[in-house]
Amino acid sequence: MTKRARLARFMDRADVQNAIIAVIVVNAVILGMETSDTLMARWGTLIRVLDMACLAIFVAELIAKMVAHGTRFFRNGWNVFDFVIVGISLVPAGQGISVLRALRVLRVMRVISVAPRLRRVVEGFITALPGMGSVFLLMALIFYIGAVIATKLFSDAFPEWFGDLARSAYTLFQVMTLESWSMGIVRPVMETYPQAWLFFVPFIMITSFAVVNLLVGLIVNSMQDAHERETGEATDAYRDAVLARLEAIEKRLAEAERTKD
Amino acid sequence: MTKRARLARFMDRADVQNAIIAVIVVNAVILGMETSDTLMARWGTLIRVLDMACLAIFVAELIAKMVAHGTRFFRNGWNVFDFVIVGISLVPAGQGISVLRALRVLRVMRVISVAPRLRRVVEGFITALPGMGSVFLLMALIFYIGAVIATKLFSDAFPEWFGDLARSAYTLFQVMTLESWSMGIVRPVMETYPQAWLFFVPFIMITSFAVVNLLVGLIVNSMQDAHERETGEATDAYRDAVLARLEAIEKRLAEAERTKD
Amino acid sequence: MTKRARLARFMDRADVQNAIIAVIVVNAVILGMETSDTLMARWGTLIRVLDMACLAIFVAELIAKMVAHGTRFFRNGWNVFDFVIVGISLVPAGQGISVLRALRVLRVMRVISVAPRLRRVVEGFITALPGMGSVFLLMALIFYIGAVIATKLFSDAFPEWFGDLARSAYTLFQVMTLESWSMGIVRPVMETYPQAWLFFVPFIMITSFAVVNLLVGLIVNSMQDAHERETGEATDAYRDAVLARLEAIEKRLAEAERTKD
Amino acid sequence: MTKRARLARFMDRADVQNAIIAVIVVNAVILGMETSDTLMARWGTLIRVLDMACLAIFVAELIAKMVAHGTRFFRNGWNVFDFVIVGISLVPAGQGISVLRALRVLRVMRVISVAPRLRRVVEGFITALPGMGSVFLLMALIFYIGAVIATKLFSDAFPEWFGDLARSAYTLFQVMTLESWSMGIVRPVMETYPQAWLFFVPFIMITSFAVVNLLVGLIVNSMQDAHERETGEATDAYRDAVLARLEAIEKRLAEAERTKD
Repeated sequence: MTKRARLARFMDRADVQNAIIAVIVVNAVILGMETSDTLMARWGTLIRVLDMACLAIFVAELIAKMVAHGTRFFRNGWNVFDFVIVGISLVPAGQGISVLRALRVLRVMRVISVAPRLRRVVEGFITALPGMGSVFLLMALIFYIGAVIATKLFSDAFPEWFGDLARSAYTLFQVMTLESWSMGIVRPVMETYPQAWLFFVPFIMITSFAVVNLLVGLIVNSMQDAHERETGEATDAYRDAVLARLEAIEKRLAEAERTKD
Repeated sequence: MTKRARLARFMDRADVQNAIIAVIVVNAVILGMETSDTLMARWGTLIRVLDMACLAIFVAELIAKMVAHGTRFFRNGWNVFDFVIVGISLVPAGQGISVLRALRVLRVMRVISVAPRLRRVVEGFITALPGMGSVFLLMALIFYIGAVIATKLFSDAFPEWFGDLARSAYTLFQVMTLESWSMGIVRPVMETYPQAWLFFVPFIMITSFAVVNLLVGLIVNSMQDAHERETGEATDAYRDAVLARLEAIEKRLAEAERTKD
Repeated sequence: MTKRARLARFMDRADVQNAIIAVIVVNAVILGMETSDTLMARWGTLIRVLDMACLAIFVAELIAKMVAHGTRFFRNGWNVFDFVIVGISLVPAGQGISVLRALRVLRVMRVISVAPRLRRVVEGFITALPGMGSVFLLMALIFYIGAVIATKLFSDAFPEWFGDLARSAYTLFQVMTLESWSMGIVRPVMETYPQAWLFFVPFIMITSFAVVNLLVGLIVNSMQDAHERETGEATDAYRDAVLARLEAIEKRLAEAERTKD
Repeated sequence: MTKRARLARFMDRADVQNAIIAVIVVNAVILGMETSDTLMARWGTLIRVLDMACLAIFVAELIAKMVAHGTRFFRNGWNVFDFVIVGISLVPAGQGISVLRALRVLRVMRVISVAPRLRRVVEGFITALPGMGSVFLLMALIFYIGAVIATKLFSDAFPEWFGDLARSAYTLFQVMTLESWSMGIVRPVMETYPQAWLFFVPFIMITSFAVVNLLVGLIVNSMQDAHERETGEATDAYRDAVLARLEAIEKRLAEAERTKD
């Protein structure tokens, strides 16, 4: 066994995996502590050092895996996922880019790529996405058209909500979630454009209907997968047995006829 | 082959279809640009010319299809759809009817009639509608009765919300979507009419229950369609095989008895 | 045929039923017109006379049905329904009971009892209810307990929302529908009682979970009904055929053995 | 039969169970009355005495059950449930802990442990939980990461909503329920941080998608349970019958061949 194979096997050992999960959990707690000014004032250096230590372990783990698997490392989507979220933490955030510092907590999501059960749930989510592709495309279309119409009609009177395509799209997203759509948005708009409900009420109905169809599609797909997985094997075994038996009976009968002649 | 048949075949060619889709996408971008005052100030004429060019292509495409298919053109619902949304763009909008100008963006929806996958999704939505007809009729009834009652009871004190049937229906639609129903509408109403919840709470329960039943109906229908499509054929083939085999066995046995006699 | 039987048959004739539906629709329009002050100022007497005429027709229809069916009339739930909503319109509303006048529009719901398709939808709703009885009972329990706790804890500081059991129950219903639960209710409460979220967040989770279970129960029940109705008969027929055939084959074989001996 | 066995049997008698349910219902009404200041002012002592009496009966019932079942008493989850909610009422609440007094109404939930139908519904809820464990864990992860990011980014400008991890988690829960997420939270935040929607809109989409997947999982599981329970037995019986028959036919044929030789 080569050194690389031995390294790969070591990284896959259950206790190594559990140690990594433990580091992730510890790191999650540390990153949570960093949000507290009181804790940072008293234990700031310790917390930062521990955070660095956790990060170092992750980097070491990634390098070990890359050495072990070579170029195949990047063929696994979860490895790329780990690589990116660890990479984010390494970008120097000294230039006042506080967003990047905040995103370092995404490291906690590594627990998904390590724990098989969470991994399966997320993979289930992702495999459900392509089946909804057409409906998503349709909703993007509805949003784009809606945003253009809303911008053209209402941008002069309500620049805050419909000033440009981006603002209109955001406001329409809010309307689609039904949040304050009437008291917050449509009633004020109707004071200037009394017919505005002719745009918004159909928009709500169409997007709700599309969302409902997404949901229905998801349920039907999951149900069929589950149905096939479960009843399929038992049924197939039974059917094969019946057909095999019938064939045997027919053969015996044919045999009997032949011997009789 | 007649010229018309050749024209029809040309219009159905994959590359022609793709070219049309490309024009639609370009037109969508252009129509989006028209909403930006900055862009229009600098490139206004170019944008308008390109928009005209796209529209010209659509008109040419429609005319070509009409020539190719003759009167059958209007028998296809999607052709009528294309005809109407391209027609809207041709109505002269100079008379200050800004709504018509805004509706020109509906042209982007042509992508649905051209892309087969989107077409199928929309056709799926539309075929789901008739099955929900009775529940829709029932909800229209509930809304009408609710609007009449609400107008009679609350129009004097709250003309803004329940002044006439249309206002009441709009307010009840808002209540049905649960948007600010209590803090925004019912609590203020209850300050004047303390028993108002006797109207609104049952209204919310009934309409929610009707919506839930719509959803359940949709799920059950989709599931059955999917179930039949999938398991139907395999099961039918198996059942036919079993019955055919049993029949053959019986025939052999009958034959055997006859030859014995 | 007795006179009563002939009357019963006459009332069930399709054209009589359609005439009744027409009267209901006309009455619905008239009752809608009554909400408009402008229309009432100009055509008030005509509208009232037409409304009286419609009511007279309904009363006549009910009496005819009662005569035709005798005491069996009240055994049909829909007849009782018609009797009650027509009866409401006959209560003299002169004593300033404007609510009763508003409820006269419930007469429009007669269209449900006359149109078979709507009737079936409503009957479907009603047959779905008993299966949800236990969950409803559970939710009533949760609401009662929640209302008592909320009243005890918050009635002193927020008498408007939690002053007594009825107010608390209404507020909890609002919270369950998620309407302004946080910005409108819980955040203000938390300013006085910072731990209030310990009551409200679990309440929202439990009631949402119960509602979701109601929905799931409804879907599963509908699906099973549909499944049985549809695949049941075909499957049963096939199974009977297979078993009958197998029995016939066995009988022939037994026969063959016997004749051989 | 030992005394303990006789006591256990007595406690399980239908009329004893019904008497307990009656006491629970009476106690529920009394606890409801306690929230009314008017009633307490006039009948305070009577209400308190009756409440004590109900509590005494519950304690007596619990002791009887503990004597009857010995240590096995605590092996039944519902007994533990009863023990805890009766125990809460016995904690002296004189030290101004008004919360404990409010929680005494939880005693009403004893009706769940006594009424078999409610018990089964709750048991159904609880058995549905483990299947959703992974998704719950994932949502907890999303909330934790979201809370850390939101606290880091927005705590300085919006201490009220995102001041620490707990506040951020509460605000994100509100955003997940879509309550005032835009007008109440995100629009104000966007006035300071215009890019804030890049955090909140994906957060809403991801949590909504996770909730939808929870729902789909619940539906699919319930459906399968129901499917198996129902069609399983009939199908299994039929399949066993067919295979038994086929075996019998084959045996007869083999027999026939042997006798012929």
